[in-house]
Amino acid sequence: MDKDRYIRGMEKLKEIDGAAGERVIQSLKDIAPDLARYVIEFPFGDVYSRPGLDLKSRELATVAALTALGNAAPQLKVHIHGSLNVGCSREEIVEIIIQMAVYAGFPAALNGMFAAREVFRERDEKGLI
Amino acid sequence: MDKDRYIRGMEKLKEIDGAAGERVIQSLKDIAPDLARYVIEFPFGDVYSRPGLDLKSRELATVAALTALGNAAPQLKVHIHGSLNVGCSREEIVEIIIQMAVYAGFPAALNGMFAAREVFRERDEKGLI
Amino acid sequence: MDKDRYIRGMEKLKEIDGAAGERVIQSLKDIAPDLARYVIEFPFGDVYSRPGLDLKSRELATVAALTALGNAAPQLKVHIHGSLNVGCSREEIVEIIIQMAVYAGFPAALNGMFAAREVFRERDEKGLI
Amino acid sequence: MDKDRYIRGMEKLKEIDGAAGERVIQSLKDIAPDLARYVIEFPFGDVYSRPGLDLKSRELATVAALTALGNAAPQLKVHIHGSLNVGCSREEIVEIIIQMAVYAGFPAALNGMFAAREVFRERDEKGLI
Amino acid sequence: MDKDRYIRGMEKLKEIDGAAGERVIQSLKDIAPDLARYVIEFPFGDVYSRPGLDLKSRELATVAALTALGNAAPQLKVHIHGSLNVGCSREEIVEIIIQMAVYAGFPAALNGMFAAREVFRERDEKGLI
Amino acid sequence: MDKDRYIRGMEKLKEIDGAAGERVIQSLKDIAPDLARYVIEFPFGDVYSRPGLDLKSRELATVAALTALGNAAPQLKVHIHGSLNVGCSREEIVEIIIQMAVYAGFPAALNGMFAAREVFRERDEKGLI
Repeated sequence: MDKDRYIRGMEKLKEIDGAAGERVIQSLKDIAPDLARYVIEFPFGDVYSRPGLDLKSRELATVAALTALGNAAPQLKVHIHGSLNVGCSREEIVEIIIQMAVYAGFPAALNGMFAAREVFRERDEKGLI
Repeated sequence: MDKDRYIRGMEKLKEIDGAAGERVIQSLKDIAPDLARYVIEFPFGDVYSRPGLDLKSRELATVAALTALGNAAPQLKVHIHGSLNVGCSREEIVEIIIQMAVYAGFPAALNGMFAAREVFRERDEKGLI
Repeated sequence: MDKDRYIRGMEKLKEIDGAAGERVIQSLKDIAPDLARYVIEFPFGDVYSRPGLDLKSRELATVAALTALGNAAPQLKVHIHGSLNVGCSREEIVEIIIQMAVYAGFPAALNGMFAAREVFRERDEKGLI
Repeated sequence: MDKDRYIRGMEKLKEIDGAAGERVIQSLKDIAPDLARYVIEFPFGDVYSRPGLDLKSRELATVAALTALGNAAPQLKVHIHGSLNVGCSREEIVEIIIQMAVYAGFPAALNGMFAAREVFRERDEKGLI
Repeated sequence: MDKDRYIRGMEKLKEIDGAAGERVIQSLKDIAPDLARYVIEFPFGDVYSRPGLDLKSRELATVAALTALGNAAPQLKVHIHGSLNVGCSREEIVEIIIQMAVYAGFPAALNGMFAAREVFRERDEKGLI
Repeated sequence: MDKDRYIRGMEKLKEIDGAAGERVIQSLKDIAPDLARYVIEFPFGDVYSRPGLDLKSRELATVAALTALGNAAPQLKVHIHGSLNVGCSREEIVEIIIQMAVYAGFPAALNGMFAAREVFRERDEKGLI
């Protein structure tokens, strides 16, 4: 069963975050392999694999939350990539970040937008949507 | 023009938050009527009125952000109502709150869920979806 | 010397927070008297006693910070009282709270304003400015 | 395997939080039983069951973190109870909360201490340590 | 009317933030021009243009809030510049940042002070007050 | 007496943070020497010098709180060093950071772990435990 969670989580992680997700997992291997395993099992194996809400809505909500919290820039960038990977448009991401000015203030929205700009440029260079 | 923002904002506020939104506006009238006006003009007249993202996605993102921030219980409840008012299902709200355990920890998700339970009960009593 | 800090702190605490400050100190006496002493010595004996910035500016800044943090309602109320005690006007307090919508979002500003409304009512009942 | 996590988690939850933990789980049963299951499986079945750090240190660290975050009063109270249940002294809890004045400011420490005072009173009434 | 807000906001932005403010606006032009417009219209056209509180007090309060939140270093630096631009002294800025140790802890105050040191050095190089 | 606090604080600072602590103090000397003095007197002279809780538990709790807050990376690194300096093992630090995934979410735990990895590497290069 646990193995199922792990396998399901790995597939979901690849679907959403692609190589960036695997790099995070890899970077934890020498210091905290169990945290790497938990990242795969709980967020991806348990939560993102749940029915009841589509992946696009889940990713937009994560971009919203990380923009609002304002203290997790690397993960915000990973999930802006993730949103685009699962079919959100750049416009939708820009919209959700603008909206966070209302709930977490303009600095949070500005810093979220600068993260989005970096991600869009990285994808432009690679010819990704 | 400003008048347009105000009118557009009032309509959007009613569409999303119904009577609860108007109560918030009313409650500011004696102490800070300009803050009441700004609430109508900027979040509702400017942001929620933007094309580029549907209202359901906007409301789910707001529920996500307020659950993650964990310090704005009254506004979280207003927007759980708002999500349901614009067509989100209770299941989608439950899903988005569960997901916040990943990004803001279990206490944030638990307190978000307790807010949802209160809202669902209020709506059950009034026969609302 | 330490005694000087304590005495200077008690005087500053009374000047700013009046009876409300003393109640906080009193309420800590049985569980953590040293925390009560630190509150007197460091914030009031050291910081608020410093020259270089007037008390009104200090209190407005504290109201701003606590409104923005949004997770310390009791202390926010104490310092809205404090601001008025040292000569700020209600209008200035309302202004600083509105301004926090820009830096911490509308929920933070709204909850700050509701705290101010409670404080203003308490003072109206007592005939205080 | 998953069943093992659940069973191990339930035992750990009872060991740490006693009846309070079970009440939280019970309160989620009608609205989000899966969140209740995750609470048992991940925090308690996975994390608190790990070797490498004793339960007392884990509970003190949780009290520290929740005091510092300052936006999860119900969970802070549950874990002050939990700390005492696994062998921490009241003095140790008071010390860790005082220490948070350094890292999260005096309002966070004060609100943490008021939570501790409530917990200590509840336990006094029940004749608990 | 909207045009008035925009023009009033641009003037206020220049008065407070000078070239730094315009750079922020410019940097948003390709990704989110509407967010740039909102920054001009709401914070500067609406809020900072309000009577009832002088610009120096407004800027000090913003430095206080951003130091306390601790997650918006670029905006904190812009507003330390802004405070000096509208007539605050370096001493007043140092004082307000020290004070945040009380409300948000020593790490927040230290990181705020390191931001101030950078700003002061930038201004020293340009011969600014 | 104040002199006692300062001397006691300097000794405690050296015991916990070694050269890193002194560098922080030194870096404040030109801009805010009083903040440097307060850092020595209150956190180290008053709080860390208290009996009632051992230094190892205090340092683990600080690592927990700073990981959870997620907005004070430099201080988190200083206190991961500090934890190791006073006798905590790397395993204990890894455990406490993993645990924060439960209370502040996975991004906070991941960023805390990346800070720990940097600290461990710095110490490997210097042949420190």
